[in-house]
Amino acid sequence: MIEPIRYDRETDKLLLIDQRKLPLKHEVLELTNYKDVARAIENMVVRGAPAIGITASYGLVLSVANPGSKDRKENFRAARERLGETRPTAVNLFWALDRMEETFRRSKGKGLKGSLLEEAERIKQEDIRANREMGKNGAQLLKDEPQILTHCNAGGLATGGYGTALGVIRGALEAGLEPFVWVDETRPRLQGAKLTAWELKQVGIPFKIIVEGAAPSLMARGKVDAVVTGADRIAANGDTANKIGTYGLALDAEAHGVPFYVAAPLSTIDLDLEKGQGIPIEERKEAEVLELEGTRLAPEGAKAYNPAFDVTPANLIDHIITERKVLSPPFEEEIASAFD
Amino acid sequence: MIEPIRYDRETDKLLLIDQRKLPLKHEVLELTNYKDVARAIENMVVRGAPAIGITASYGLVLSVANPGSKDRKENFRAARERLGETRPTAVNLFWALDRMEETFRRSKGKGLKGSLLEEAERIKQEDIRANREMGKNGAQLLKDEPQILTHCNAGGLATGGYGTALGVIRGALEAGLEPFVWVDETRPRLQGAKLTAWELKQVGIPFKIIVEGAAPSLMARGKVDAVVTGADRIAANGDTANKIGTYGLALDAEAHGVPFYVAAPLSTIDLDLEKGQGIPIEERKEAEVLELEGTRLAPEGAKAYNPAFDVTPANLIDHIITERKVLSPPFEEEIASAFD
Repeated sequence: MIEPIRYDRETDKLLLIDQRKLPLKHEVLELTNYKDVARAIENMVVRGAPAIGITASYGLVLSVANPGSKDRKENFRAARERLGETRPTAVNLFWALDRMEETFRRSKGKGLKGSLLEEAERIKQEDIRANREMGKNGAQLLKDEPQILTHCNAGGLATGGYGTALGVIRGALEAGLEPFVWVDETRPRLQGAKLTAWELKQVGIPFKIIVEGAAPSLMARGKVDAVVTGADRIAANGDTANKIGTYGLALDAEAHGVPFYVAAPLSTIDLDLEKGQGIPIEERKEAEVLELEGTRLAPEGAKAYNPAFDVTPANLIDHIITERKVLSPPFEEEIASAFD
Repeated sequence: MIEPIRYDRETDKLLLIDQRKLPLKHEVLELTNYKDVARAIENMVVRGAPAIGITASYGLVLSVANPGSKDRKENFRAARERLGETRPTAVNLFWALDRMEETFRRSKGKGLKGSLLEEAERIKQEDIRANREMGKNGAQLLKDEPQILTHCNAGGLATGGYGTALGVIRGALEAGLEPFVWVDETRPRLQGAKLTAWELKQVGIPFKIIVEGAAPSLMARGKVDAVVTGADRIAANGDTANKIGTYGLALDAEAHGVPFYVAAPLSTIDLDLEKGQGIPIEERKEAEVLELEGTRLAPEGAKAYNPAFDVTPANLIDHIITERKVLSPPFEEEIASAFD
């Protein structure tokens, strides 16, 4: 199984697959302090809402394991603040930091590192378990030999392992449904073409990569049975923030009667937010659009606008697949009941 | 003015700006025979429906001007066939080849080259004039300080000069409306980020480049007043083939009440085709998606599906802007009357 995030207990190092280098190079970074972890999240060494939460949790472990000349508790508090500033949209980040802080508060001085590490490992293992449950739950929505379109990477790399949207597709494989996947390349960072394609190859699921503009005409020709994406934050009413381009896919799916599914653990649901308008949307640097792999694409002096996420309104979503159950509209009630 | 296609009468050479190199390099290719012209069209040295038609016309001039050891008339017929096989979707190609063939049939042996060159120049000059008329006609649909979203490049580079969709935007500038442009980068070949951005810089119209996935969320936030695109072929009922991704934009526009305009000369309308389903859609090679500027993006062994165009149904189009007039739904009647 792909293990994008692993904590080495012997050396107190956090090992991250450098997802910026995939699929051409498989490099593992070894991080020893929270500042490097924060930068790794910002620079997208690791990305995907659940994976960001898990990584940040280990970052807090490092803040106590390797505090340098600082006081451990002070360093923890600084790390808590710094990690919380890395990326604003994925709520799993704040959810995981809150859990770690709760553990920090409850634990006594001496067992601090052990308690934090235990909690971080628990967050990771719970996530993998949740993904597998989503896989089983989601597979039940799919027919035989489904042609599934997915966006960005919501796979093992974006989570503790296994994946959310890709977890559902893997669940379909394991249920014997023989899925085929249309992989949206997902500009500007091409997580589809690079990461999702790499993962699908690993697990042996057939796929083809398309530019995002090709999705609606595939739907018009009956070549898409379902769209399945992950999520970065889901409001209490079901409005869902996810990688830029998701909203357009949901509109395309609606226009063609193609079911649109979001797969996400309950940790992605932000009960404090009534609706999607309140979700902060990260704006990333223009160079992600204007350059590629260090090559300038646009003319000198050209500007870009580069929002990293968009919000899909709940009324365009047919089901939200969670580890507990498959949620159906109206989502307010179902979401509330899923937390009971 | 940008002059992407120019015939040098002194040397009988066709001079094409190599659009694959823009915006970073401004190189002009000098072609002396129709085979190189055919390859230049296939490889997208020159692209855009009107520009393809004009280039192919000059290719036929070259077939007679520089026939090598071949008989001129035989060489013309071979060139007519070869050029007609280059790209299947843009109907302007076949329209221009037909006009040239008609001229060929009518002209006597001795004046053949002169007649063909005259006709090719006429096709080009008519196109530029048509673009300017579209610019004036289209500007009347726009309000003050419009935020216009465009896809691919339907500018001076895609035509004899001035542009179709960009012609409308330039018409807005010339009418004092102060347009701002959202430039869809347009994967896989990035004609938006590369060519449209380059042209807009030349003419001094402010713009920002976006990935295609960002368009619908801009519309949801009221940041788009109109979408204007070009066309590669318009059926008699108004169904419009254009660069892959156009159909999705039309769906987005419909969902947000944003007007969707197609700007195209009458030569882009194919009266022989009742509706869009009959338009042949070119499928281009996978490498356009899997690689960029020679750099591999996707994992080894990954496959892609790469249709170059899609079809936007007439019911999603608010107006078709032609040189004769602005056409409104129902398009069957208006299109028929525009040819009267």
